[in-house]
Amino acid sequence: MSAFDDLLAYQHETAALAQIAGRLSWDQETVMPRGAAVQRGMEMAAIESVLHARRSAPQVGDWLAAAVAPDATGAAHLREIRRAYERANKVPGALARQIARVTSEAQGKWAAARAGENVAAFLPVLSEVIALKREEGAALAAGGDVYDAMLQDFEPGMTGAEIAAIFDAMRPKLVELRAAVLGGAAAPALSGTFDEARQMELAHRLAQAFGYDMTRGRLDKAVHPFSSGSGSDVRITTRTSATDPFNCFYSTIHEVGHAAYEQAVNPAFALSALGQGVSMGVHESQSRIYENQLGRGRAFTGWLYAQMRETFGDFGIADADTFYWAVNRVHDGFIRTEADEVQYNLHIMLRFDLERALMSGDLQVQDLEAAWNDRFASDFGFAVDRPSNGCLQDVHWSVGLFGYFPTYALGNVYAGCLNQAMRTALPDLDGDLARGDTSAATGWLRENVQQFGGLYESREVIQRASGMAPNEAPLLQYLDAKFGQLYDL
Amino acid sequence: MSAFDDLLAYQHETAALAQIAGRLSWDQETVMPRGAAVQRGMEMAAIESVLHARRSAPQVGDWLAAAVAPDATGAAHLREIRRAYERANKVPGALARQIARVTSEAQGKWAAARAGENVAAFLPVLSEVIALKREEGAALAAGGDVYDAMLQDFEPGMTGAEIAAIFDAMRPKLVELRAAVLGGAAAPALSGTFDEARQMELAHRLAQAFGYDMTRGRLDKAVHPFSSGSGSDVRITTRTSATDPFNCFYSTIHEVGHAAYEQAVNPAFALSALGQGVSMGVHESQSRIYENQLGRGRAFTGWLYAQMRETFGDFGIADADTFYWAVNRVHDGFIRTEADEVQYNLHIMLRFDLERALMSGDLQVQDLEAAWNDRFASDFGFAVDRPSNGCLQDVHWSVGLFGYFPTYALGNVYAGCLNQAMRTALPDLDGDLARGDTSAATGWLRENVQQFGGLYESREVIQRASGMAPNEAPLLQYLDAKFGQLYDL
Repeated sequence: MSAFDDLLAYQHETAALAQIAGRLSWDQETVMPRGAAVQRGMEMAAIESVLHARRSAPQVGDWLAAAVAPDATGAAHLREIRRAYERANKVPGALARQIARVTSEAQGKWAAARAGENVAAFLPVLSEVIALKREEGAALAAGGDVYDAMLQDFEPGMTGAEIAAIFDAMRPKLVELRAAVLGGAAAPALSGTFDEARQMELAHRLAQAFGYDMTRGRLDKAVHPFSSGSGSDVRITTRTSATDPFNCFYSTIHEVGHAAYEQAVNPAFALSALGQGVSMGVHESQSRIYENQLGRGRAFTGWLYAQMRETFGDFGIADADTFYWAVNRVHDGFIRTEADEVQYNLHIMLRFDLERALMSGDLQVQDLEAAWNDRFASDFGFAVDRPSNGCLQDVHWSVGLFGYFPTYALGNVYAGCLNQAMRTALPDLDGDLARGDTSAATGWLRENVQQFGGLYESREVIQRASGMAPNEAPLLQYLDAKFGQLYDL
Repeated sequence: MSAFDDLLAYQHETAALAQIAGRLSWDQETVMPRGAAVQRGMEMAAIESVLHARRSAPQVGDWLAAAVAPDATGAAHLREIRRAYERANKVPGALARQIARVTSEAQGKWAAARAGENVAAFLPVLSEVIALKREEGAALAAGGDVYDAMLQDFEPGMTGAEIAAIFDAMRPKLVELRAAVLGGAAAPALSGTFDEARQMELAHRLAQAFGYDMTRGRLDKAVHPFSSGSGSDVRITTRTSATDPFNCFYSTIHEVGHAAYEQAVNPAFALSALGQGVSMGVHESQSRIYENQLGRGRAFTGWLYAQMRETFGDFGIADADTFYWAVNRVHDGFIRTEADEVQYNLHIMLRFDLERALMSGDLQVQDLEAAWNDRFASDFGFAVDRPSNGCLQDVHWSVGLFGYFPTYALGNVYAGCLNQAMRTALPDLDGDLARGDTSAATGWLRENVQQFGGLYESREVIQRASGMAPNEAPLLQYLDAKFGQLYDL
């Protein structure tokens, strides 16, 4: 066997172990007994330690030095393995183990603090997480910007400054659009309550309508919706609220976007360095285009309206046009994951600025709640009423995910580019969507984005699929057109 | 740090990884998507390969050579780590990986063959499993008996000849008892159907009545009931049948016996070589004493009768004495896991003899079904009607568990010894059990058996707890007394 073949065989086993670690996280969020948290932290630390040792093994360095890629796909394998190798070698094994253990515990403490509306109970462990992540970031940055180094785990090639530039271009437009929309008529809202078991049944139907393969996945409930796993075991979660069925349905469609991406990756890449989505931003572009440009469009909501009427009877919405407006209702709210398309990116910008400040040391942990609440009041025009609606609402920081938030807004930017190209390629798409048939759209995305897995880097994926470099203009045009029509601006 | 401390720190991580591998198996049996089986086989192979490498690492050999145990507990740690090290070094890594992969696939094929009543569909992969296990056994035996070598994985210190001697002493007595019982009056049976969701609710109550800690465990349904995990994450499964609620309830109590053992091990041993039950036989002694000597005794069945009347209403049994007889009904049946105390060990002896013959080569795979059916007809007096009632009924061989079956009967032998000692120590036990209070009994078992985990080897555990060397006499006395009274012999 050549060095290239040896390296790929070794990577196959590493990828399998990484899948196992991911499945443990799924287990922790869905079925793990409450009293198992401490032991689970030790177990996660053990497998992360094994993964770290494998990724940073001197043998991998030797193979990388000697390997000759047989073709472009081979070169992409080497690119991704090299990235992981270099990253792993910059972070000491003991630090990686400590991060795994502390974040596992921190997640439990975050959940308890959130349930108890007790920010103070979360801050000590958050300080620990931040100190460890800053240490890791400094090791990765090797003298450069710590936050930029963190971004590379989620959106390789991006910098904080570049993201800030895109956000700066979007922000005034979104503030303007938001003001115009919220100055208009109040959108209709659903009335009554919605049986949660039936919500889950409809969520299963929605998942399948968007092409999620249930023989290679499953749908469960969890506090925070997520997608987990690659290849032939890609699981999603959602949540239910008796008064807000859209929370369940659009979380489901969103996670199906992530999961469908993983399920569609070329099977030849299974359990390899190319066997999953290429970046968090491209991942989010898939979840967002499923959720918003497809799932919240006028055509598909017509079909969903009929499904919901059949499932729940009358819920105070007289017709499909009114339903479309209700689905796309813009209103004040605290929660990022429930935010509409107009305001969502404002939530992200808040987190992006705060986490950069936490990492640089410009913001101290004890000032986080006040900083969050000040910024929220300033951007959204009203006050946070309790921590679970404010700085305790997201799981991300507790598990050490700094640099992750901005990829949500990048995903929206990419989705704008892809949607423009897809609509040009599929002029009759709305006819299909009105019948609940997403196959042309999901087929186009599978063909132009999803199948490639990690083969092309994120900029190239978007460029190839949409014919343009990633930029915010198509998203802003789409939002102006959609909400201008809905709110008669 | 000393060599001893280094070794124990390393073993802690190995034990954590072993817990992860166990949890993957739980996942496979309960929640895994059907289409994920092939990928799961690769994942299991990867983690087994890591475990094998860690157990056989030259570094472990160096530490074992240099380590000085500070006390008797330390010596027990070294004994167990050395056992695993020597075992792992005898089996080539490639063979261990192949066994993991093939048995994972074989399990799926067994399930399909069983569902389709198609022995032929299972035999090719069973041949593969046997060939691989024979190769492993030969490596372990180093010239000795292959089957004896396999036994060491389940009941260290036992040989096939010793087990055959115990079985020979028991068999004529059990055949005689069986003939006498089946020649007597037919026991009453339950009538009607039993809601399966309510069965699961009562199963949860039963699990808690026997001291299973639900904050560190969970109860799900699976094809084959099992217990999985150690320390603070010990999960059990059961199954339901609309017409046979005892299947669900006594499978639950049985698995609770296993799980309670794991949950009761001294927390100081968590994620160490001593952090689980010491052998399969001692494990089975706990599941059997919970299920039979406690759960199927006259006292506890009085309480269970009241619970079942409350849950299901009338089911054709007029009083608690009749119910006790129904619970302990001896009747013809095909399925080992549903067998009564009188006939259970005959099922085991059948498997013990067949698997020894498969391993020695005296029995060929293509002759397995005929051999099973002949032996069954000879021991039980009637013919196997279909493979799922015959040689496809158990999962064990598909997953490579040869040498496991005899530990079930050894467990019964140990349980007989423990029960005799426990009844002497707790003369008022039946008063508690009649109120559904198992705490004195489970407390005695926790104190005298379970807390020790892997500290003492199996013979010593039984000797210390019962004051006698393991022997079949107390079990036979117990069975003669119980069934003599029930069947008026």
